[in-house]
Amino acid sequence: MDHENYSKLVLVIRNDLKMGKGKVAAQCGHASVGAYRLAVKRPNVLKAWEACGQTKITLKCDSEEQMMELHQTAKAIGLISHVVRDAGQTQVAPGSKTVCAIGPGPADQIDQITGHLKLY
Amino acid sequence: MDHENYSKLVLVIRNDLKMGKGKVAAQCGHASVGAYRLAVKRPNVLKAWEACGQTKITLKCDSEEQMMELHQTAKAIGLISHVVRDAGQTQVAPGSKTVCAIGPGPADQIDQITGHLKLY
Repeated sequence: MDHENYSKLVLVIRNDLKMGKGKVAAQCGHASVGAYRLAVKRPNVLKAWEACGQTKITLKCDSEEQMMELHQTAKAIGLISHVVRDAGQTQVAPGSKTVCAIGPGPADQIDQITGHLKLY
Repeated sequence: MDHENYSKLVLVIRNDLKMGKGKVAAQCGHASVGAYRLAVKRPNVLKAWEACGQTKITLKCDSEEQMMELHQTAKAIGLISHVVRDAGQTQVAPGSKTVCAIGPGPADQIDQITGHLKLY
């Protein structure tokens, strides 16, 4: 498969919130559905991602500021990006931004923005 | 909100596979999108779940056998249920069944099937 055409979704997780593993998993569920709903409006993007097995990669960041900067940069270059705001009934304050889904989209573009982040 | 009408999605995670937290989060992303896609075909179910903030709960089970039994029982009573089979490029054998999403659907029905499971 041509790397330039490879499609993926990255889930950037707020590591500073110290969420439990089940909480993180549920937030990544929210983020994935949010990204999927945006992708439905771009059939070619969705098709490419499905052809790549709906690849999902979990990465970590250290602050809300850093996450929002990634979100804005992603949107500025035309990528799908979706931030999850948690209802905050457990573990985090209401309205906390917990995970940012960037993509689905071309791996090379996503790597430009998130390539420096470590795997979660 | 009436408990009987409360809608949720549970993500039943194979605890015996000893997946890392990032792996589990990505698998729950797959499971959530899979369940969402099935829910799109049942607009009333989807609407109810969205009205409840797309509640997602992570639970754990101890074997593939137990997970598949939950999946079959859920389907038998008419609930949405979706099992994730992992491509197995990391951590687990190819084709491993990692997470079962049950719902979205009425909390009382889902609790009948999964109420005995512990939170992940």
